[in-house]
Amino acid sequence: MEKIKIPKATAKRLPLYYRYLIILNEEGKEKVSSTELSEAVQVDSASIRRDFSYFGALGKRGYGYDVKSLLSFFKKILNQDTLTNVALVGVGNLGRALLNYNFKRSNNIRISCAFDINQDITGRILSGVPVYDMSELKQQLSDQQISIAILTVPSEQAQATANQMFEAGIKGVMNFTPIRISAPSTVRVQNVDLATELQTLIYFLESDEAAKESNEE
Amino acid sequence: MEKIKIPKATAKRLPLYYRYLIILNEEGKEKVSSTELSEAVQVDSASIRRDFSYFGALGKRGYGYDVKSLLSFFKKILNQDTLTNVALVGVGNLGRALLNYNFKRSNNIRISCAFDINQDITGRILSGVPVYDMSELKQQLSDQQISIAILTVPSEQAQATANQMFEAGIKGVMNFTPIRISAPSTVRVQNVDLATELQTLIYFLESDEAAKESNEE
Repeated sequence: MEKIKIPKATAKRLPLYYRYLIILNEEGKEKVSSTELSEAVQVDSASIRRDFSYFGALGKRGYGYDVKSLLSFFKKILNQDTLTNVALVGVGNLGRALLNYNFKRSNNIRISCAFDINQDITGRILSGVPVYDMSELKQQLSDQQISIAILTVPSEQAQATANQMFEAGIKGVMNFTPIRISAPSTVRVQNVDLATELQTLIYFLESDEAAKESNEE
Repeated sequence: MEKIKIPKATAKRLPLYYRYLIILNEEGKEKVSSTELSEAVQVDSASIRRDFSYFGALGKRGYGYDVKSLLSFFKKILNQDTLTNVALVGVGNLGRALLNYNFKRSNNIRISCAFDINQDITGRILSGVPVYDMSELKQQLSDQQISIAILTVPSEQAQATANQMFEAGIKGVMNFTPIRISAPSTVRVQNVDLATELQTLIYFLESDEAAKESNEE
């Protein structure tokens, strides 16, 4: 299936649509309107219609979308018929939590190997996933044909570890460290910066509060 | 200090700028150009200049920005002189990892109380944080004047738990569950959807791959 050029914001919403279509389908629902979908996924219905329009005629205005066809369409687009194996680099607190995180519930993704330097855990199987020493990174990624990794090492080691990962052939990194790592242009980095997300939330709440106070004056 | 109306994208980058300014200041650097900052935080320098422009004249073109003034300015804007206490609701794997997460390193945020229904852990102190029973939510939030909570309960309990949180006075939620929760209009919800982030990364990598292949044809 050919990939269609779509905006990043649209691509980010596709897994969300897909997850809700799974739920709707399980509930036995056959049709869904953009308004209903909008309420479920908390995205305005104009955006939903625009997102869907990138993929051609998925539904007819006023008739709603067919749940089963949408589901199978998104399944293909999101490559959900094949399991995507990813690696986890850094098995600390967050790494361990991610080993237990159910990525498979609505996405066909599995952490199939983990890497660390701590000899208390390397060579062991944690939450069903083998933990290898970092020295085995290149070999294992090549054997398992893995090109995507989750980075959960301490900040101080983020860049050096990322460099090892690029050297070992990693093409996509989900970066949980607060460091913005430098990467070759051929590599995609997705930053998940927990402190920043929380800080942003706090900032907006304080703005709301300030706006309310100035309205009350 | 009055809050300035800024775009959401800008607000999201402020904590990032702040963090790097701390590092630069610790290194003893006195001036920084938007180009240098751009390389460090991986944001293009035009966006940095535009972001800074919302706050008036923070620097002079060609002379760079004064690190100490920028730092103290962002410190005020981000309210970093006072500690912000937040609650954690749901002490499972991810919740425990977050209890150990160092939000204080570059942001003045602390998880000061946690809530769960599991009687094996309620009434205990985990990673320095007291874990209360959910029945104590309203009282504790009120006593501790906390209005922000991190939600890390199982999906099935997400909405019901969120409702309890709103009832208890929570105004900001950092939602780690894959469910898009419905919230009153007075509440801000920040979604951190790990599976979706990973799925989006995979989608883009596959698009890159497809584009490369079609170029090679």
